[in-house]
Amino acid sequence: MATSNNYICGINPVLEQLKNSPEKIDKIYIRKNTTIKNFETIQNLASDNRIPVINVPGSKISELSGDVNSQGIVASVSQIRYQSFTNWLDTFTPDTETAILLLDEIEDPHNLGAILRTAAAAGIAAVLVPKHRQAPVSAAVMKTSAGTAGRIPIVRIGNLNQTISELKDLGFWVAGLDQTAGSRIWDQTYDVPMAFIIGNEGRGMRKKTSEHCDFLLSIPMKNDVESLNASVSASLVCYEWRRQKEMTQK
Amino acid sequence: MATSNNYICGINPVLEQLKNSPEKIDKIYIRKNTTIKNFETIQNLASDNRIPVINVPGSKISELSGDVNSQGIVASVSQIRYQSFTNWLDTFTPDTETAILLLDEIEDPHNLGAILRTAAAAGIAAVLVPKHRQAPVSAAVMKTSAGTAGRIPIVRIGNLNQTISELKDLGFWVAGLDQTAGSRIWDQTYDVPMAFIIGNEGRGMRKKTSEHCDFLLSIPMKNDVESLNASVSASLVCYEWRRQKEMTQK
Repeated sequence: MATSNNYICGINPVLEQLKNSPEKIDKIYIRKNTTIKNFETIQNLASDNRIPVINVPGSKISELSGDVNSQGIVASVSQIRYQSFTNWLDTFTPDTETAILLLDEIEDPHNLGAILRTAAAAGIAAVLVPKHRQAPVSAAVMKTSAGTAGRIPIVRIGNLNQTISELKDLGFWVAGLDQTAGSRIWDQTYDVPMAFIIGNEGRGMRKKTSEHCDFLLSIPMKNDVESLNASVSASLVCYEWRRQKEMTQK
Repeated sequence: MATSNNYICGINPVLEQLKNSPEKIDKIYIRKNTTIKNFETIQNLASDNRIPVINVPGSKISELSGDVNSQGIVASVSQIRYQSFTNWLDTFTPDTETAILLLDEIEDPHNLGAILRTAAAAGIAAVLVPKHRQAPVSAAVMKTSAGTAGRIPIVRIGNLNQTISELKDLGFWVAGLDQTAGSRIWDQTYDVPMAFIIGNEGRGMRKKTSEHCDFLLSIPMKNDVESLNASVSASLVCYEWRRQKEMTQK
């Protein structure tokens, strides 16, 4: 009845996890032909949270739970660990090859997963996410990220504007994506440590946040398209930064 | 009992549409406090296809259906019309400012919607989609595209390799996205009419298709990320093309 590796074993621990943080559960494994107390409650909570429940042979349960008495039920949980802002800063000295993303209330887990995947691919140093009004790094996010979400630090921050101010003190230039900006993503040379802010899917970046930016960047759009998907906008800025790094190294 | 504008009016027409092409239905409107024959069947089919059913006042129904007798029920249908390859070619002379996308079996409607939206924003001239093994341009695609899916021609094609050959005859250079390519998307100058091929989400571009390309392009990836979301890959190549157009015009 304890936690072993990234698996939670036993009826009550799984039930507690389902009640308190279902978003961290990836799958639930149940030993075939086992009678589980509270099975219906577990099944309903899993169903409500779209968590697959899989019947497996006893050998699979033993393999997952190790020496722990599993009572025939094991939940695999997301391996993502957030870093705190101060811990992350301790491991880290920004230089001209550094860029990070700050997400301003990205609410859709698919967008968050796609952003984490592209940020890792583009060589972004970290993704900073506010504690509030932000999709958690759930199993759905892990899935959309194709398992890449854990490859770069995900740093939880409190107040976004306070964080911007601290990043500036560390030498970062802070650029926000804003469709009204006169400067396009291609117009700037990213030869300093960069922090790019990606706004909410619907509302874009908050006005107060944009006032804290060193400069704003837009992505030109034809055919009266008014906005792009947040993960597409993030990808374009990440890879424009990457392009500049790769092309100037040649 | 007929079709008016982009609305289908009346019980049987809506039921037929639900049975035959539910993917084209965006929403179903039902007049409040109306008894609809076969209501349960309609409700179930709508629910199976995730189509919202909305109760509205009679005035809203009249507004949507115009002079047509609606029997209190109206379905709004997707406005997307495919063009045929030959019809599209008739309206169109490729030049150095022309780029098109060819999709090779994009199966996820969200990816298709995001690709259509970004292609429209980037000023891509048309998106060519094969008839087979390809997500249809459904209401879900329209929704993900944020209503932009109809702003550039969507052209249905039969055999992809045959189409590639015809595009080459028209002066297009055909470039496929392929992670094994030595040439990066930034290494080529797109000063000819371009056709970019985006492969399937899981498998990538088919081998036979890649053999028909004039050249292949890769997107560099760090942190052992092996692939990007298909809509992200498409966005990066569309906007690298756009960047070259905008930056050389200056």
